[in-house]
Amino acid sequence: MASKYALGLDFGTNSVRALIVDVRTGEEVATYVHDYQRGDQGILTDPGNPHVARQSPHDYLEGLAESVTAALTAAANIEGFRPEDVIGIGVDTTGSTPIPVDAQGTPLAFQPEFEDNLNAQAWLWKDHSGLAEAEKITDLAAEHRPQYLSKIGGTYSSEWFFSKVWHCLNVDPRVFEAASSWVELCDYIPGVLVGDTKPEHLKRGVCAAGHKALYCEEWGGLPDEEFLSLLDPQLGKLRARLYEKAYPSSEQAGLLCQEGADKTGLPAGIPVAVGAFDAHHGAVGAGVTVGTLIKIIGTSSCDITVAQKETGASEVPGVCGIVEGSVLPDCYGIEAGQSAVGDILNWFVTYVCGGDAQLHEELTAKAATLRPGQSGLLALDWNNGNRTVLVDARLTGLLLGQTLHTTRAEIYRALIEATAFGALTIQNRLQEYGVPTERIIACGGIAEKNTMFMQIYADVLGTTIEVSRSSQTCALGAAIFGAVAAGKAAGGYDTVEEAQAAMTGVKGLRYVPDQEAHAVYHRLYLLYKQLHDSFGVQGHQEELYGVMKTLLDLKAEASS
Amino acid sequence: MASKYALGLDFGTNSVRALIVDVRTGEEVATYVHDYQRGDQGILTDPGNPHVARQSPHDYLEGLAESVTAALTAAANIEGFRPEDVIGIGVDTTGSTPIPVDAQGTPLAFQPEFEDNLNAQAWLWKDHSGLAEAEKITDLAAEHRPQYLSKIGGTYSSEWFFSKVWHCLNVDPRVFEAASSWVELCDYIPGVLVGDTKPEHLKRGVCAAGHKALYCEEWGGLPDEEFLSLLDPQLGKLRARLYEKAYPSSEQAGLLCQEGADKTGLPAGIPVAVGAFDAHHGAVGAGVTVGTLIKIIGTSSCDITVAQKETGASEVPGVCGIVEGSVLPDCYGIEAGQSAVGDILNWFVTYVCGGDAQLHEELTAKAATLRPGQSGLLALDWNNGNRTVLVDARLTGLLLGQTLHTTRAEIYRALIEATAFGALTIQNRLQEYGVPTERIIACGGIAEKNTMFMQIYADVLGTTIEVSRSSQTCALGAAIFGAVAAGKAAGGYDTVEEAQAAMTGVKGLRYVPDQEAHAVYHRLYLLYKQLHDSFGVQGHQEELYGVMKTLLDLKAEASS
Repeated sequence: MASKYALGLDFGTNSVRALIVDVRTGEEVATYVHDYQRGDQGILTDPGNPHVARQSPHDYLEGLAESVTAALTAAANIEGFRPEDVIGIGVDTTGSTPIPVDAQGTPLAFQPEFEDNLNAQAWLWKDHSGLAEAEKITDLAAEHRPQYLSKIGGTYSSEWFFSKVWHCLNVDPRVFEAASSWVELCDYIPGVLVGDTKPEHLKRGVCAAGHKALYCEEWGGLPDEEFLSLLDPQLGKLRARLYEKAYPSSEQAGLLCQEGADKTGLPAGIPVAVGAFDAHHGAVGAGVTVGTLIKIIGTSSCDITVAQKETGASEVPGVCGIVEGSVLPDCYGIEAGQSAVGDILNWFVTYVCGGDAQLHEELTAKAATLRPGQSGLLALDWNNGNRTVLVDARLTGLLLGQTLHTTRAEIYRALIEATAFGALTIQNRLQEYGVPTERIIACGGIAEKNTMFMQIYADVLGTTIEVSRSSQTCALGAAIFGAVAAGKAAGGYDTVEEAQAAMTGVKGLRYVPDQEAHAVYHRLYLLYKQLHDSFGVQGHQEELYGVMKTLLDLKAEASS
Repeated sequence: MASKYALGLDFGTNSVRALIVDVRTGEEVATYVHDYQRGDQGILTDPGNPHVARQSPHDYLEGLAESVTAALTAAANIEGFRPEDVIGIGVDTTGSTPIPVDAQGTPLAFQPEFEDNLNAQAWLWKDHSGLAEAEKITDLAAEHRPQYLSKIGGTYSSEWFFSKVWHCLNVDPRVFEAASSWVELCDYIPGVLVGDTKPEHLKRGVCAAGHKALYCEEWGGLPDEEFLSLLDPQLGKLRARLYEKAYPSSEQAGLLCQEGADKTGLPAGIPVAVGAFDAHHGAVGAGVTVGTLIKIIGTSSCDITVAQKETGASEVPGVCGIVEGSVLPDCYGIEAGQSAVGDILNWFVTYVCGGDAQLHEELTAKAATLRPGQSGLLALDWNNGNRTVLVDARLTGLLLGQTLHTTRAEIYRALIEATAFGALTIQNRLQEYGVPTERIIACGGIAEKNTMFMQIYADVLGTTIEVSRSSQTCALGAAIFGAVAAGKAAGGYDTVEEAQAAMTGVKGLRYVPDQEAHAVYHRLYLLYKQLHDSFGVQGHQEELYGVMKTLLDLKAEASS
């Protein structure tokens, strides 16, 4: 019997990847990455406002067609491969990346009137122009709908759906008025594939809806019109032009239309899954299950796990996103993270040391020779604020313990350790609220490349860390949902769990905690936690006089 | 009438300087620096023990002869100058730098038996081998003679006289037993000049005695035999072979002997002043008076002022040294300081940035463009512990407020600001105990060269900072005491104040506080003090949650 394949489409920040996966083995038989052509690596910026980050929807459509076509071309080298053997398509994208669209669901950016208007483009996830609006949403929700805040860690972000839409209304009412609706990129692409982007026809994904637009079935879906009218009556009116229900990615969005078939080289009629965000599909591609924490470690970190609904872990203080069905259907999807991990190391090497990739290597090699506690240093990993568990963007970094002999390699290691302590804080919080971590699978650039870094994490967390077999877990997760959308009868799977069991795996390499190092890190963590709570939690103050002394004691022990 | 001259001899860590000064004008007419020839720039080290730092007394005698001879040769170019016009000689040296000597006062190092024995050499000020002994002295004094600790800030240092002598007894009893007495370098050199180094004849300086050997007239001079016997009975027995009385440098040690005249080219019979430490004579050379704080700012800082005895400021908590007559006769000499200033900048540039002198310049230029508060950073200046007012070597550095965009120039400036806040803390403490600062005169490498640094100090301290006219204030101070030893009748002066009025001065350049900057620094200082007390004072804990937020507020204000 010929193999069957699923196609995963992963729309990232600078490029789109198409991945063709053997649904029986998870083998990744062909892939192609298309770089966006417009702006600065795909990002349209405003010289007058550093918070603005937009993208042209043209880049998405061109990237969709080209990446799939090229991936199919590459797959043609595989013996017996035929486009007809692709049985399902899944899609993930960045987000919240909402696009203003007309009544047909066509981006306003495609109208000559708006083609050069930044506000009519896709508002990329990292656009922060809605900062003031986000604060007002948080304040109004705290006063009128406190339940909204309980699922998002207490603060609505400037990166999220309503901050962006409202900001558009405030700065460019002409675009807002022209927009019949606003559509997340992860919902728009499946709409394009099935040939119907009409807002009222789109099957919106619960991942974007729940994590970024306050959607929850507990309170009847999106925020109610009365609340949105408190922000602005115009937003209240928009409510009816958004959506009532959102779906997990295990659902079909529809079947590939003829136009989509023509543009990609796939046959029409292939089932297309409901879209979701890249990190969530990435977690699925890395093998997330109940009890397994997926850590995507790169410039920042994203921690994703799932909990059975029966555990009641629907609210964990300080954890920004808990959404039913956002990762696996019928489970709570739980998303946490650290606002900066590799970015802190990059900052130190680039901004402080004035170095480059070679210096990273040099410092990594030197730091690897140090024992836990030996530097006498301790840092807080807050150079970009703290996402989980403090949910406070207005926190900053801290380094202490430096002498006149402290080396840059010691600081480099202390910064890594700080991010590991931050990771442990997240894990402890989840555990306290009924979401224990039995297994950790890591993926992302750092997880794959930096063994020193990963061993520190294992030693700090006291848990063996495995590494995802696939290095393109997002696209693989999308392909898994494609296989589920196809269903068992078509050669795919009826459940995500079955698809994961067949299509995901870990590498042979695993990082096992060194118990001696773990014991030292436990003592360092107690100091970290003292600083963490003293500087991060209002009204909480530890006695800090002993911190420097204890670090010197640990240093002396490590050096003896 | 021909000009009269005084000779100042300044024995530093790596060299000795001879300076010939016109006593009427303070004009420095000739100088010569002789570098020590032995060891590493004059320092004898022990590869097996990094705490060891010794010097050969041969270097002192060679340096004495050569530097004076060469300075006289240089002065010979001056019209009408004759060696007979040199009316007085003053001496300052590093300290505590005790030398084991025989009954004649000859260094044991000059005996063939001991010439290669490190323990028989001079124990240089920065020798830390007596660390354990220092701790025991502190403990025993706390128990049996708490009054001893009240004058030295609560802790006896490993750098001081009895730690070194006792350590010698513990590690090399043969040297200890061979030593008839131990003599500070600043007492030894005047003895050599007057031709009598017999321990019982030497006029010991109160500066070394009071600051390093617990000498105080309140309790009858040096620590009593009973107390020293508690350390070790052998030390108790040494007590009688030390000295009963110590003198200020306004006293004569004697007259230049014929041998001294032959070796230097000066006529015999010139009055020689009692010796003292370099920083203290430096303060006199910089113009110290009641109400004037002298700041010697270099790799570390030394702050010296004087207080009238009537003020009762004989004890200031956290100020290590208050000794009657150690700076000006009839005043309390008050010595405070910061364990690292320029050294922190050197550490950052060298160890962290991997740069050199050129990078110092670059960072200085960039840091100069920043406004107070603009970086959002705050640091503690404790990379080498805190000498005043916490007297705690086991404190370490701290930096907070860093983001992913923090630059090295911002950190460089924050480190300078931290040392300025440390300086303000010292000044505030002195003021609280009745020693207000009405005027600041700075000297030392940084004070002369770094205008950005000095302006920050003026802005932080809120006081105009003047800069000493002389860049060799130690040798000038020694010359001033030479002029006083000569007395008015010989063309010198009868009081130090008169000599200072004629021989010291400040440069035209002065640093006037910018009131706007001072206001911002006042707010930053409140945050610094919160960190200072929380990490540095046992049992004292401030609420620190607001520190990072307030820094961000100040940053926003500075950037707007």
